[in-house]
Amino acid sequence: MKAVRVHEYGVDPRIDDVPEPTIQGPWDVIVDVGAAGLCRTDLHIIEGQWDPIQHPTLPYVIGHENAGTVREIGSAVSNVAVGDTVIMHPLTTCGLCAACRVGQDSHCANATFPGINADGGMAEQLRTNARAVVRLDAGIEPKDVAALADAGLTAYHAVRKAAGVLFPGTHAVVVGAGGLGHIGIQTLAAITSATITVVDRSEEALELAGTLGAHHTVLATSDDEIAAKVADITGGGAHVVFDFVGESGAELLVPRLIRNRGQHYVIGYGGTIQLPTIEIISREIDVIGNLVGTYQDLVELMTLQAQGRVQLHTKVYPLEAALDAIHDLEAGRLVGRGILVP
Amino acid sequence: MKAVRVHEYGVDPRIDDVPEPTIQGPWDVIVDVGAAGLCRTDLHIIEGQWDPIQHPTLPYVIGHENAGTVREIGSAVSNVAVGDTVIMHPLTTCGLCAACRVGQDSHCANATFPGINADGGMAEQLRTNARAVVRLDAGIEPKDVAALADAGLTAYHAVRKAAGVLFPGTHAVVVGAGGLGHIGIQTLAAITSATITVVDRSEEALELAGTLGAHHTVLATSDDEIAAKVADITGGGAHVVFDFVGESGAELLVPRLIRNRGQHYVIGYGGTIQLPTIEIISREIDVIGNLVGTYQDLVELMTLQAQGRVQLHTKVYPLEAALDAIHDLEAGRLVGRGILVP
Amino acid sequence: MKAVRVHEYGVDPRIDDVPEPTIQGPWDVIVDVGAAGLCRTDLHIIEGQWDPIQHPTLPYVIGHENAGTVREIGSAVSNVAVGDTVIMHPLTTCGLCAACRVGQDSHCANATFPGINADGGMAEQLRTNARAVVRLDAGIEPKDVAALADAGLTAYHAVRKAAGVLFPGTHAVVVGAGGLGHIGIQTLAAITSATITVVDRSEEALELAGTLGAHHTVLATSDDEIAAKVADITGGGAHVVFDFVGESGAELLVPRLIRNRGQHYVIGYGGTIQLPTIEIISREIDVIGNLVGTYQDLVELMTLQAQGRVQLHTKVYPLEAALDAIHDLEAGRLVGRGILVP
Amino acid sequence: MKAVRVHEYGVDPRIDDVPEPTIQGPWDVIVDVGAAGLCRTDLHIIEGQWDPIQHPTLPYVIGHENAGTVREIGSAVSNVAVGDTVIMHPLTTCGLCAACRVGQDSHCANATFPGINADGGMAEQLRTNARAVVRLDAGIEPKDVAALADAGLTAYHAVRKAAGVLFPGTHAVVVGAGGLGHIGIQTLAAITSATITVVDRSEEALELAGTLGAHHTVLATSDDEIAAKVADITGGGAHVVFDFVGESGAELLVPRLIRNRGQHYVIGYGGTIQLPTIEIISREIDVIGNLVGTYQDLVELMTLQAQGRVQLHTKVYPLEAALDAIHDLEAGRLVGRGILVP
Repeated sequence: MKAVRVHEYGVDPRIDDVPEPTIQGPWDVIVDVGAAGLCRTDLHIIEGQWDPIQHPTLPYVIGHENAGTVREIGSAVSNVAVGDTVIMHPLTTCGLCAACRVGQDSHCANATFPGINADGGMAEQLRTNARAVVRLDAGIEPKDVAALADAGLTAYHAVRKAAGVLFPGTHAVVVGAGGLGHIGIQTLAAITSATITVVDRSEEALELAGTLGAHHTVLATSDDEIAAKVADITGGGAHVVFDFVGESGAELLVPRLIRNRGQHYVIGYGGTIQLPTIEIISREIDVIGNLVGTYQDLVELMTLQAQGRVQLHTKVYPLEAALDAIHDLEAGRLVGRGILVP
Repeated sequence: MKAVRVHEYGVDPRIDDVPEPTIQGPWDVIVDVGAAGLCRTDLHIIEGQWDPIQHPTLPYVIGHENAGTVREIGSAVSNVAVGDTVIMHPLTTCGLCAACRVGQDSHCANATFPGINADGGMAEQLRTNARAVVRLDAGIEPKDVAALADAGLTAYHAVRKAAGVLFPGTHAVVVGAGGLGHIGIQTLAAITSATITVVDRSEEALELAGTLGAHHTVLATSDDEIAAKVADITGGGAHVVFDFVGESGAELLVPRLIRNRGQHYVIGYGGTIQLPTIEIISREIDVIGNLVGTYQDLVELMTLQAQGRVQLHTKVYPLEAALDAIHDLEAGRLVGRGILVP
Repeated sequence: MKAVRVHEYGVDPRIDDVPEPTIQGPWDVIVDVGAAGLCRTDLHIIEGQWDPIQHPTLPYVIGHENAGTVREIGSAVSNVAVGDTVIMHPLTTCGLCAACRVGQDSHCANATFPGINADGGMAEQLRTNARAVVRLDAGIEPKDVAALADAGLTAYHAVRKAAGVLFPGTHAVVVGAGGLGHIGIQTLAAITSATITVVDRSEEALELAGTLGAHHTVLATSDDEIAAKVADITGGGAHVVFDFVGESGAELLVPRLIRNRGQHYVIGYGGTIQLPTIEIISREIDVIGNLVGTYQDLVELMTLQAQGRVQLHTKVYPLEAALDAIHDLEAGRLVGRGILVP
Repeated sequence: MKAVRVHEYGVDPRIDDVPEPTIQGPWDVIVDVGAAGLCRTDLHIIEGQWDPIQHPTLPYVIGHENAGTVREIGSAVSNVAVGDTVIMHPLTTCGLCAACRVGQDSHCANATFPGINADGGMAEQLRTNARAVVRLDAGIEPKDVAALADAGLTAYHAVRKAAGVLFPGTHAVVVGAGGLGHIGIQTLAAITSATITVVDRSEEALELAGTLGAHHTVLATSDDEIAAKVADITGGGAHVVFDFVGESGAELLVPRLIRNRGQHYVIGYGGTIQLPTIEIISREIDVIGNLVGTYQDLVELMTLQAQGRVQLHTKVYPLEAALDAIHDLEAGRLVGRGILVP
């Protein structure tokens, strides 16, 4: 079958002919990939940035946002049947470790992460496991949901964790209304009653944000101007800021956008938090890390999608055009999320 | 009356004769000070470090850890009577602002902070208000509890916030077993079932820690050694680290002592957190700020003290010897907490 | 001034000429009543049902859902000024007791409850206190919000407590879409992402429910039919049922409408819960009591109202026609909430 | 092998020779039973009380509190090895259903409950699965822990759920200091800082309670006397009452023992809760159901046991003497927990 594989860091992946995956354990599931999302993390993988963290064996198939149709199941699989439409949680988890036992399966001690440290979904078929598959209504199109499997799931996870404090009268600020941010805005509007303010450098992104649930938008100019505008809109700072950028200065600006007792949710990455402890304690503010969501988060996000409350803006490429999609993303030519369809 | 007042930053305070405080509003309470704790924050005040944050008008009376006997009450005060033994929450709060309404009175928008931005308790009398006073059993000696009013309360507040995740099998690590830390250890033992590991540079402090509830102690040598020992004891890192130091490198070491999904509770201050966002997100770790506790925290801490589960190690000085106490603290000659008794 | 007073239980109240209230303590606030809601509880008061619980001294002024304009303030009041538009939390709380200190002021140990155990708001003026008043934007009309002060607040309080478990994919069932229920539906839609199903005997009420946010409606016929329909809609029972009836059999039906681990929120009253302990433990289900909301709940509800997310259906009567309103409510002729305007 | 099987309800079980269990799926685990606890539920099973709830096929092996040594594992089992000492969670759960995914595995939709609806552990061998086994330190004796697998786990689960509100100054009341109650007392002392009051009819049980962590004891005489004593000790009622009886009037007395905003935790069963809705709402009290604990609860409880903080009082019988044990339990001759050792 065709598959997009990284052979060497710093070099374009290649579209190879590789053997089809096979069932190797009782919980394995083979899926005919219907769509695979293209993510900025794929660029970082190609650059080699994830090698020291996940150290995959090259060459391997990338693609960690996958949806499709069940093709074959292992002997112990009872939760999906051949022919089911499914979306894949990005991790294949074990169900036995301490994290899995308490529903924190995104921290599974025995997981693989197809597309990151094992063969992924930019291919005609993918091997995953029973604990990764979420069954969808037959009418759902894989290309409409695939990018929710990781990007969307990460945004939702952060919003879901914060939801307990986002009640009427509170202020949520979203920094960065791109791929993750625009899912963050929609899920904030769907599951919280906070007033939502979006900060971005692009007027176009802010316009889109307004249609997705943002109550206020702030064009990112100087830090002082942003801070002043946010203070004004929020009456002294946000209760929670969702930082979907995490680099290029956003990570240093965010503490100025939160009120005392407020929280800085870190989702984007690249920069370094630098925060004097006296500020942390005198304002009693928190910095909260956010990994990808749990399986349950993905189930909830799929519910919102089925209810029409979350929509992705996508551009579809055939799998053979994977390098075009990658180059478009690198060059900033890709508006919305790139989706590869075998 | 006699009072210890700061006249100029960087210079020893003076013991002055000042007029006694008077009732000025219906909720005011005048207390005959029974004991005032001496705190490292007093040294920072004298150095001028808190001036830009709290900007008090000089000269003023320091002393923000106070207990004593009610001398006079305003017309609307119903919760204490003249003659009651009381400990004072460090803030005089309003009961009307948004923070007060939800029990977060340490963030009161209209508070004064006697000893920090208003006349404090290193004096024969102190003016506070009805919302600050916690009534104690008549048998309690002010000198035995005064230092719990701020140092102890801050340690308790942090432990109390974290208690919800510290169940059997979890690991709490205390960095710094000094004034706050030794209260932290006792309250961890009292209200959680975590395994407690204490890290300190002083063998004497570690010995004391062992008698206060620590299950393991680690002598602070090199960061690598500390990290290795803590990883070994905790099976891969603490669930929560309470950083009572917050400077001199502790603030940079702590992230190495926590496991994935773990939390760095910042209580001590002075240094600057520097944490790459990729580490924050890939490990899903948090940095949690901790201010002084709430009134309810103080009530709970007084309950623990009355039950004999929290004890302070103190050295008592007469109020007239305040400068000796301050110099002893500066010079590191003060073992335990300094207490001034008028 | 004119005031509606109960002189004897079981007999119509009278409209009397009474002295205007006066400031008696530093935290007192006198309000020119703009509107007072009429509530089924007023009928129960007149019947004498609340006498053994609140034992007021007769005669006294009823009316516990009040909004208006500040007329005079006590010497210590700083949070409102003469001329401010305000809505009153039903209780005048102390800010000093254990419940008040943790934001549970609806359980204040020292409260009065104007209209229940002290003179209320069916009058030209009302005495309340600083801790009861929520300042509103000048444009808000007292008649549009008064009934939110108790009926709405109670419904919101229950929904707010349950909100932490009502995420995408969960099912909330509302039993009784009357005065409280129709606020419950609106606030469920505003602050949760649960799927909302409404059960009522009235087709008209169900039609209204559909316009307020209900996703499904079930006409209350036989218990078996209701249970079957709810099981079908919810896939095995609701996660939370809000019982706004609490009598006439609803209190016995509700346990059949919840799934295992589900919760029965009791808001309406009159009947008696009868639940075998083996059912409670084998299904691990809860029965949750709900009093009126806290001050903070009222602030949040007023935010929703100002955002246009909660609307009351009301019928306005002049204060002089209070007995007409009462008789209309008794006779079931009052559609929507009765509001008395002096 | 030998096994204790129920053939007919209302009649003594028999000790039969039956075939040894075999591995039937990849996640199966066969255990050499080291000890099986005897529980009052076994009497209820023999009486037929659980037939309509769990409808097992007769004859079958009872025994749902089991510990032992792993004898054989299925092809996909990675978390235990042959020879490991293990205690069994009472349910074999699936790891795939909605409840399992969020750590609520005691509500697994696909579980078996060996000893209740499948062959249990009063036998030489038991078939369970990978998700049920908790590995223990080699030094642990099965007979010392077996009865924690269900009775202890149920008590711990209830205490663990309530722990979040049981802080210094709060009052927990334990009604019934028998098999479950005496674990409840020990775990309350271990993981909460509440003041513990125990109510029981037996002076002997109360004496034991005092050695296990109870701060106060109340001999159960008349309801009025109990209520008066508890009100006195707790200053107006408990924050949480753990009802380990749930019948014979305890279930009706408990609401009188809790303060407003308090909670009635139901663990014992047999009686019927009868509670007027006006009392539920005007006092804002809750009735909380408690099933057996989760796998994570069992891990925590085993940690407490290994730390020496929970101890069972047991009487050991050889498996062949199972009927003696059952008769002793029926006749009230069994002090402590009966343990069968093959």
